Amino acid sequence: MKTVLPPLGIFLSQEVQRSEGASLVALCASAGVTAELIVHDRQTPPDAYALQSIHLALLSVDVIGKSTKTTLEPEMQTFAQTLRDATNLQWLQVPSAGMDRPLYDELYERGIQLTSSAGANSKAVAQTAVAGLLALSRCIPLWLNAQKEHRWHPLRGELIPPQLDGQHAVIVGTGAIGQNIARILQAMDMRVTGVRRSAAALPHFDEVVSFDMIDSVLPTADWLVLACPLTELTRNLLNEPRLKAMRRSARVINVARGEVIDETVLINALREGYIAGAYLDVFAVEPLPAESPLWDLPQVLISAHSAGNSTGHQRNVVAQFKTNLPRFLQMQSLLNEWKPRVSAAEITTSIDRRQP
Amino acid sequence: MKTVLPPLGIFLSQEVQRSEGASLVALCASAGVTAELIVHDRQTPPDAYALQSIHLALLSVDVIGKSTKTTLEPEMQTFAQTLRDATNLQWLQVPSAGMDRPLYDELYERGIQLTSSAGANSKAVAQTAVAGLLALSRCIPLWLNAQKEHRWHPLRGELIPPQLDGQHAVIVGTGAIGQNIARILQAMDMRVTGVRRSAAALPHFDEVVSFDMIDSVLPTADWLVLACPLTELTRNLLNEPRLKAMRRSARVINVARGEVIDETVLINALREGYIAGAYLDVFAVEPLPAESPLWDLPQVLISAHSAGNSTGHQRNVVAQFKTNLPRFLQMQSLLNEWKPRVSAAEITTSIDRRQP
Repeated sequence: MKTVLPPLGIFLSQEVQRSEGASLVALCASAGVTAELIVHDRQTPPDAYALQSIHLALLSVDVIGKSTKTTLEPEMQTFAQTLRDATNLQWLQVPSAGMDRPLYDELYERGIQLTSSAGANSKAVAQTAVAGLLALSRCIPLWLNAQKEHRWHPLRGELIPPQLDGQHAVIVGTGAIGQNIARILQAMDMRVTGVRRSAAALPHFDEVVSFDMIDSVLPTADWLVLACPLTELTRNLLNEPRLKAMRRSARVINVARGEVIDETVLINALREGYIAGAYLDVFAVEPLPAESPLWDLPQVLISAHSAGNSTGHQRNVVAQFKTNLPRFLQMQSLLNEWKPRVSAAEITTSIDRRQP
Repeated sequence: MKTVLPPLGIFLSQEVQRSEGASLVALCASAGVTAELIVHDRQTPPDAYALQSIHLALLSVDVIGKSTKTTLEPEMQTFAQTLRDATNLQWLQVPSAGMDRPLYDELYERGIQLTSSAGANSKAVAQTAVAGLLALSRCIPLWLNAQKEHRWHPLRGELIPPQLDGQHAVIVGTGAIGQNIARILQAMDMRVTGVRRSAAALPHFDEVVSFDMIDSVLPTADWLVLACPLTELTRNLLNEPRLKAMRRSARVINVARGEVIDETVLINALREGYIAGAYLDVFAVEPLPAESPLWDLPQVLISAHSAGNSTGHQRNVVAQFKTNLPRFLQMQSLLNEWKPRVSAAEITTSIDRRQP
């Protein structure tokens, strides 16, 4: 006797439904599964029936939009509430590499599988980190000030930049982002040190040291590039003793998370001249409050948590979801599965993912 | 009977004399030649005796200072006049790769050997070209505007930049500068086409085409990077038909010479939207006149002919001079010798370089 299964409910945004809905349904059909798309609507949350039909969900770039970890736009608020109310939710794919949103902890506690999109925007983040590094190195803010005043202002005398080739960059975090940054900096003949959990060698790094050796490489760094996840190991990694141990000519790039730096101490270090400058895409509180002194420090370049934004990001996130979807249907382990702060043994395995 | 030679007179700046004078004298001594340093003084040109003692000269970065091809600062004016008046001058080393100053033509006509410092600032120029490319790609001018207003302004919606990886860059000029640019762009997974005299393959370029094929590669370019010398082949290379043949999303980077672009046509192309933007370090007239429309075009990023400026530049120029000096003393051919627009047969060879 044949069992009739209810359809597999996939919760997604209108944008993803429009561009990828048909292909997601076809992908499930080719695995013998009937899929039903439950489409997010900011104004009207799904009704009780639709809610209990949701088995998996794709949180895409368009839904997060301008929402930060702490300040949620309406689009993201209703999407998050739907995830909370979807009692049969089994798997959520999120669009970032970083997994430091309270919502994710909450869903994980419920036994829901979470997968990151690590790598989906790593090239854009790396390009932006290098853009910030080069903008500081070549004094682009000065160009723009002079340009506004129609003023010919060559970099001469005190303004002549040191040559980048031969300078020493320390990159904390050697995942896809750190590796892409290292590759570009090596192509500019910079010396690149990676800092990671283990000291194993990696391509594009001249040397790799473990976290407990970071204090031995900071004093020779011309650039400290933060490209690590936020974990208990990296929170407040850049603290006062480390900032004071750096060269006064050194600069900091942060495309990781604001909490990796003790921001109060950084502001003081910049004011006192312990370091020469910073390019920051991420902050302890986002949006960065209008009253933060960082905005007006002349050696600081700021972007609004946009390092990873590129038209290719959404495409890559959907591609990763489509790689994982057949694995989910075949009950294989998912790629980029997130297992936070718990040992493998503790991970809930009791959920029947196949039978929605 | 031993011939007593008069000392070899080397004309140089105070800055070079201070840092390198002793080592230049020692270098000559080790080749059995007594050297006399004639030191440039902006206020007091050398007297008639000192003038006729000058046999070779190093035009260094500090002497050119803010002088352009057409507007000479006092430092450069008196240095140039001394070169004109130095009747026994046999060799001049200049600090740039480009040799398009009227003074050089004039000295060459007198039979004076000229050597460029090709390569001395090629890495800095390449880094600056990529800095401009990334600044345009990642919308750094928007960051700075938002930062001035303490405004959190993520790149969302229409502002999301296309991903650079996979984009097509056409680099005109495949010397040291073009090759360094290509190497960095390849490390960002861009596809790189070189345009040069011959179509021979080169490292760091996905393909190389000859100048007469440029119109076949422009229509697919996302970035056109000009890094060629100014010659009769490259003057007005970027003209109206070529600008119109490019993608409307394409952008132009010029770290070559202003005259490589028909500037009036470029301004029109930017206003009409034939191309999306430009980063320009060089201009048809320098300093760029305050009334130029380029200053205010929102898609244009301007620097003041500073792409090659770095603290390593002067050091590299002096190093190249010190490589050439023993070759000069031993009557060997000089590195980076400049032989403009004349066949090898026409080059004056009648000067006795050894006997000052």
